Amino acid sequence: MILKTVPGVSGRIKRLEIQGATNIAISAVKALSQELRDFEGSKEEVDHVLIEATRMLVESRATEPMMRNGLKYIRSHLTAEAPSSRDSFKEVVTQIEERILEMYQGGRQRIMEIGAKRIRDGDIILTHCHSSAVTGSLMLAHEMGKKFKVINTETRPKYQGRITSRELVEAGIDTTIIVDSAASHYMKEVDFVIVGCDALTSEGNIINKIGTSQVALAAYEARIPFYVLGTLLKFEPITIHGHYEAIEERNTDEIWADSPEGLNIRNPAFDVTRRDYVSGLISEEGIISPHSILEAIHRHYPWLLD
Amino acid sequence: MILKTVPGVSGRIKRLEIQGATNIAISAVKALSQELRDFEGSKEEVDHVLIEATRMLVESRATEPMMRNGLKYIRSHLTAEAPSSRDSFKEVVTQIEERILEMYQGGRQRIMEIGAKRIRDGDIILTHCHSSAVTGSLMLAHEMGKKFKVINTETRPKYQGRITSRELVEAGIDTTIIVDSAASHYMKEVDFVIVGCDALTSEGNIINKIGTSQVALAAYEARIPFYVLGTLLKFEPITIHGHYEAIEERNTDEIWADSPEGLNIRNPAFDVTRRDYVSGLISEEGIISPHSILEAIHRHYPWLLD
Amino acid sequence: MILKTVPGVSGRIKRLEIQGATNIAISAVKALSQELRDFEGSKEEVDHVLIEATRMLVESRATEPMMRNGLKYIRSHLTAEAPSSRDSFKEVVTQIEERILEMYQGGRQRIMEIGAKRIRDGDIILTHCHSSAVTGSLMLAHEMGKKFKVINTETRPKYQGRITSRELVEAGIDTTIIVDSAASHYMKEVDFVIVGCDALTSEGNIINKIGTSQVALAAYEARIPFYVLGTLLKFEPITIHGHYEAIEERNTDEIWADSPEGLNIRNPAFDVTRRDYVSGLISEEGIISPHSILEAIHRHYPWLLD
Amino acid sequence: MILKTVPGVSGRIKRLEIQGATNIAISAVKALSQELRDFEGSKEEVDHVLIEATRMLVESRATEPMMRNGLKYIRSHLTAEAPSSRDSFKEVVTQIEERILEMYQGGRQRIMEIGAKRIRDGDIILTHCHSSAVTGSLMLAHEMGKKFKVINTETRPKYQGRITSRELVEAGIDTTIIVDSAASHYMKEVDFVIVGCDALTSEGNIINKIGTSQVALAAYEARIPFYVLGTLLKFEPITIHGHYEAIEERNTDEIWADSPEGLNIRNPAFDVTRRDYVSGLISEEGIISPHSILEAIHRHYPWLLD
Amino acid sequence: MILKTVPGVSGRIKRLEIQGATNIAISAVKALSQELRDFEGSKEEVDHVLIEATRMLVESRATEPMMRNGLKYIRSHLTAEAPSSRDSFKEVVTQIEERILEMYQGGRQRIMEIGAKRIRDGDIILTHCHSSAVTGSLMLAHEMGKKFKVINTETRPKYQGRITSRELVEAGIDTTIIVDSAASHYMKEVDFVIVGCDALTSEGNIINKIGTSQVALAAYEARIPFYVLGTLLKFEPITIHGHYEAIEERNTDEIWADSPEGLNIRNPAFDVTRRDYVSGLISEEGIISPHSILEAIHRHYPWLLD
Amino acid sequence: MILKTVPGVSGRIKRLEIQGATNIAISAVKALSQELRDFEGSKEEVDHVLIEATRMLVESRATEPMMRNGLKYIRSHLTAEAPSSRDSFKEVVTQIEERILEMYQGGRQRIMEIGAKRIRDGDIILTHCHSSAVTGSLMLAHEMGKKFKVINTETRPKYQGRITSRELVEAGIDTTIIVDSAASHYMKEVDFVIVGCDALTSEGNIINKIGTSQVALAAYEARIPFYVLGTLLKFEPITIHGHYEAIEERNTDEIWADSPEGLNIRNPAFDVTRRDYVSGLISEEGIISPHSILEAIHRHYPWLLD
Repeated sequence: MILKTVPGVSGRIKRLEIQGATNIAISAVKALSQELRDFEGSKEEVDHVLIEATRMLVESRATEPMMRNGLKYIRSHLTAEAPSSRDSFKEVVTQIEERILEMYQGGRQRIMEIGAKRIRDGDIILTHCHSSAVTGSLMLAHEMGKKFKVINTETRPKYQGRITSRELVEAGIDTTIIVDSAASHYMKEVDFVIVGCDALTSEGNIINKIGTSQVALAAYEARIPFYVLGTLLKFEPITIHGHYEAIEERNTDEIWADSPEGLNIRNPAFDVTRRDYVSGLISEEGIISPHSILEAIHRHYPWLLD
Repeated sequence: MILKTVPGVSGRIKRLEIQGATNIAISAVKALSQELRDFEGSKEEVDHVLIEATRMLVESRATEPMMRNGLKYIRSHLTAEAPSSRDSFKEVVTQIEERILEMYQGGRQRIMEIGAKRIRDGDIILTHCHSSAVTGSLMLAHEMGKKFKVINTETRPKYQGRITSRELVEAGIDTTIIVDSAASHYMKEVDFVIVGCDALTSEGNIINKIGTSQVALAAYEARIPFYVLGTLLKFEPITIHGHYEAIEERNTDEIWADSPEGLNIRNPAFDVTRRDYVSGLISEEGIISPHSILEAIHRHYPWLLD
Repeated sequence: MILKTVPGVSGRIKRLEIQGATNIAISAVKALSQELRDFEGSKEEVDHVLIEATRMLVESRATEPMMRNGLKYIRSHLTAEAPSSRDSFKEVVTQIEERILEMYQGGRQRIMEIGAKRIRDGDIILTHCHSSAVTGSLMLAHEMGKKFKVINTETRPKYQGRITSRELVEAGIDTTIIVDSAASHYMKEVDFVIVGCDALTSEGNIINKIGTSQVALAAYEARIPFYVLGTLLKFEPITIHGHYEAIEERNTDEIWADSPEGLNIRNPAFDVTRRDYVSGLISEEGIISPHSILEAIHRHYPWLLD
Repeated sequence: MILKTVPGVSGRIKRLEIQGATNIAISAVKALSQELRDFEGSKEEVDHVLIEATRMLVESRATEPMMRNGLKYIRSHLTAEAPSSRDSFKEVVTQIEERILEMYQGGRQRIMEIGAKRIRDGDIILTHCHSSAVTGSLMLAHEMGKKFKVINTETRPKYQGRITSRELVEAGIDTTIIVDSAASHYMKEVDFVIVGCDALTSEGNIINKIGTSQVALAAYEARIPFYVLGTLLKFEPITIHGHYEAIEERNTDEIWADSPEGLNIRNPAFDVTRRDYVSGLISEEGIISPHSILEAIHRHYPWLLD
Repeated sequence: MILKTVPGVSGRIKRLEIQGATNIAISAVKALSQELRDFEGSKEEVDHVLIEATRMLVESRATEPMMRNGLKYIRSHLTAEAPSSRDSFKEVVTQIEERILEMYQGGRQRIMEIGAKRIRDGDIILTHCHSSAVTGSLMLAHEMGKKFKVINTETRPKYQGRITSRELVEAGIDTTIIVDSAASHYMKEVDFVIVGCDALTSEGNIINKIGTSQVALAAYEARIPFYVLGTLLKFEPITIHGHYEAIEERNTDEIWADSPEGLNIRNPAFDVTRRDYVSGLISEEGIISPHSILEAIHRHYPWLLD
Repeated sequence: MILKTVPGVSGRIKRLEIQGATNIAISAVKALSQELRDFEGSKEEVDHVLIEATRMLVESRATEPMMRNGLKYIRSHLTAEAPSSRDSFKEVVTQIEERILEMYQGGRQRIMEIGAKRIRDGDIILTHCHSSAVTGSLMLAHEMGKKFKVINTETRPKYQGRITSRELVEAGIDTTIIVDSAASHYMKEVDFVIVGCDALTSEGNIINKIGTSQVALAAYEARIPFYVLGTLLKFEPITIHGHYEAIEERNTDEIWADSPEGLNIRNPAFDVTRRDYVSGLISEEGIISPHSILEAIHRHYPWLLD
């Protein structure tokens, strides 16, 4: 069995050429759909391709439930709709693919609009790392004529905060960059914090870029609202069953390339923010309490829980 | 009136060629003493030199109470001891200088010894930025044969944490460096946090390198003891009278040299850690509650309060 | 188009001749129904009346989601049930009106019964402002033979607490009135706090008479249970979509009529109490966690979320 | 009317010969089913037996919602399925009984598996009292090859902790017993706490063996996750309606048999742990936030709320 | 024995014609001194006058340690300095009186200056009730050219906040009055809170006008600094010995003159604010931690502790 | 060198025949004094006896600073007062012994009186373990005619709470005993908690019987005042210098004599209560904040810090 599309996409995800939870999820869904449409073989062989291609994509990056959920949607709906002929199979794959991409796209648009409404004239908003949904939401508010300022952290070690700064400055938004350690110092001036997320757990906790839990804690201590903006499709179903979400640990050269011999370097990519520090999750369901995540999944995406 | 020694030292402090609260204080005290000994002139002119030289040194760096307190000690003791002749004047200056330097040196040694005693076999200790008293204390404990590990932050934007890492690795201590944002993530593994300080206020708060308050908050949240190591001579007397300690804001190139046009960058050098997050101040008086700082000053360095 | 009933009712709401969330909602629903039944005109003209009359009622008072939700129920069910003839139209309006009034009445009764069950012999209960559901619940418990005492605040600036005191004393309940500032002082003697509410948000926060958040905070600090008693029909749907609930600001003469020239007076009618301070919401669904409000709405009043 | 089976079982429950929420519930369900099958009489008399036998079982032990819920399931389903003949009646009783027992058994297995997954190599887990679901979960993890240690309290006055210790030591698990007062002292070494429960309330609070709330508080203070393991069938429906769950008070000889005359002894069997201290409820629905208990009941066991 | 001056002053204090801790203390000290100077009699009779006059003044108002401390100063210093002749007695009384009045006056001036320094351009400052030291401090800052705004509560039941408003508006300061219940609502806009005080206890707690503890709690919750401005002479020595400071309860007509029959009204004049909510006590010693009050007394006013 | 008295006393302390911090301290001081008086030898030999006897007593029991401080007092005052002849030596030893015993006795009496004043009619007071100062204080209040009730824990594993119960019941005080785990359950009924202590640290923390920190935490959570009653002579000077106070671990048979093979048992005798949970330390200085312990030592027992 030779896969045509998936290995290439999988490699680009591994090398960070494709990044961001949504981008990765879209690319993986498209790659799997393409692979299935291109494949010529028996029903049994198709199942084999489905399993193998999914495995390869899943292993390209840990801590990516949004991608895993997309791939799961394809598999479970293909089974449920059981296309009988080769032609109808291709058609069904395309229909399923379109439904997911629309779920992604529609959810994203709705989330950005809700986030934009939270912003008032005169607000100072702090964000950490880079989330295209967060910057999208800020730019939407700016287009609506709202006057506000943004403070964003540089986000060591990969400086994704600089991407955030650049996008916002180009959009004409008043933006100030600070080191990660200065978040607490500026918290008193801030009206609210807004960050993206990579994964949601069944207890209502949030997994996002390393440092998010520190920003959340500083916000809570200063009694500043802390919002998380993200689709419910980032929910990690295995956390219901007692498993822990894995935290990816990345290359130490990102922190200090020519470090002295004998020095240990640790470089976890994400941390966990406790539900008690999250004022609200801005999702395609509206702004909800993080305690209700599992209930919202039950109602909105029941197939995620099978 | 031409000053000989002070302008040079003052310039080197300004350009960060001399740095660290203790080094700055020692250099300034020596420079002022030398200036006074070298000066040939009337009693009135000496007073003028004293005032002018002090002003120049004080202005070379904000947020440096330890230096200001040393200069104040010279002035107030010169007045109190009122040497009558030219020769006795030079001698008195030298005696006063020696007393201060011994206060600095003796206090430092005592603080490092107490800090070293706090460390137990098997401990994991987290520190932020670089403090020669903290690394001195850790190296002393290592020489005493204690087995422990250190986690230290890299401390953006100037990476002083790398100096800490290098010193400890060279001393043979098991050391791990992390980004500032990962402090909270590793806090659960830590046995206690220890940091230096730049200034102490009359309400019992601590001023130290930007990010210290975030580390303290994460330690408090995780119920990990948080110790501050520093001489009482870093007490800032003007805070008693209602003034605020100024927070130095540094050059933005330290954060992002080729940043996009229009982007604001803020770069405060220090932040304030509330006394409630400090388990104990390790001082030349022993380990004391930060609530008692002012009392300890009253008893130990009453001249600071004149 | 000339409206017959709505302008009069709308004016009486504006002048506070009709007040209390439930009374206002009932009057507005009845007025709109009457207006619709009385109107003689084309289908298109009816739609116009519906829109115009609703707008006028909504604008008569801000921070009144219960009224807005009632008017929305009429509009959405009229559309869904699409009566074809003039006669059936009048009949359908009447049926819809009756359904709402029964929802209001049935919910209210159930809430008062649950509240009454919470009360035990010997309890001391503190309340703020005047809520007819709260006093109704207390009087029901009294009729059931329970022995308890009530402490209520006077509730500046309109002294609605005096209405509460008067109703309870007339019912034979042992009642003590205090100034608003004394709530914290007496909290240690209190067994639980119970208040009404004006609006509920999608994050689970509670909007009620100014001062409620202070009482809730004092109760939380003293570890006294704090209950909110109110129908889920006070849920504010626009908060899901990122909007903020508006806080009505009232006439300053209520605070100080002959105040010195140049003095500013602020007189907000409501404040927001954070979900973390609310032990339970006593609703027609039973006693629920405020984190579950949105879920309860999804199940109980799905039309509210359209 | 003479009952054959129920009086004996009821007596054994009263004398603690049958104990543990699950054992009691199973025995009571079996006894009532047997009683109904054995009874020969008219439809009306059967109803009488059902009521009388249920009453007797319910009164055998307070604070046992799991038993009450099981008996309620029989009654409500018997009514709904309305068997017409004598024979079909016996068959329906048996079917209902089997369904409950399977709900009990299936839920229990699933809960133990989820609990076992939460355990990681190297963990130190603290538990209080004896819960067969907790020890079952620990033994399952041990069989799966996980290496961990358990600390358990002795649990005065009945020393149920010794049963826990014995079971775990026999299973080959590294176990340490401490006095109840030492829980807080050892909390810093613990990775998470896990306890069983006797009842769940509509506000999300947990009722379990006396001392549980102290362990939960110490865990919260030390920022250690605190899990409760139990089936949703322990939900107490009357708490929705404003009633308080009763707390059983037991014989004082359990504390001090030959105590001095005049000394009072209080011996409550359970206490209430606030939802804020519970990281997650490990249930047959997965790990859920305690704020969502009522929602989970609505979805999973709607008959509980009739 | 007939007292000439004291009974009149004592009566005016009782009828609130003289009010404010400082005014009462000054009047009482002057009255007792005058009484002693005017009295013609034996040494023994003088002692009797001293005791009787002191008792009468002390009883004129509870919760007034500043007055009691002043009277104690006269008594203890008269004894210590033991004037031998009639003339020297009068002179010594006058000297002691002057020393106290200067202590009062000098401390007050110093406190107001420190308070004024805390204020920065652009600050919004909230205060509760009326304290002449607080308004004095604000007016001093205004004279120094600082631009700031004040929000003050009306302070039911006696509306002392209107006195504060009037004084500040007349001084040209931008002032806004709100009801007591709105303090929490406006806290987010506030930079710091400053209030006066009536008594200080040995544990470091603050006794001030009813409602102060609620404002302090709201400030703490919102993480806004809360300062108390007052002389150490308000320290209550009996609290060291385990006694409780009495809380005066005032006439209920102040709250509701024509209240319904059977209604209880409670009207405590003061409440206790826990030291943990006080950022700093602005005293004649500078800004100190409330934890250090007893230490400051030991050093500054040792005679208070005899 | 043969010691006559000390070995016997030291053995009785080891075997718990002498117990309680005060009893142990008195016995040790008397034993050392007797040993010194009985000894006949050269000045040098006396020094040797002093050192050896002190070492033996100190080693008889860990966590006993009050004893160590008493022995230190003898040594340092013997050196300072340097008696020249044999006879004067014996006399000086006796004088020093008397001074210590009076310090112990006077302090104890004063502490019990202050504690008794804290108690009001109607109070319910909770205590843990047995402290003769606490029961003495309660009995004193009872003799003064105060009406109050006591709840005390049984205090596993040695049931010292039964000694407390017995003493109080015999004195005619209304007393209720509960298991240690029930402390949190009854906390809501309690007016304040009072416990003794074994050691005080320079940071202001309290070391007392295992379980004290749990009781303190429950009191703090319920916002109930928590008092510690003990002489400042229990201060542990080495904690100033960075050392940790050792926590004695006792025989495991105290917990479970016939435990299953392979079971670990841990039995620490004491735990550490953080200063933040202590409302006040009732000492011979009055009721002081635990933050001020070191200051009080500086002023009251400066020799402790040499």
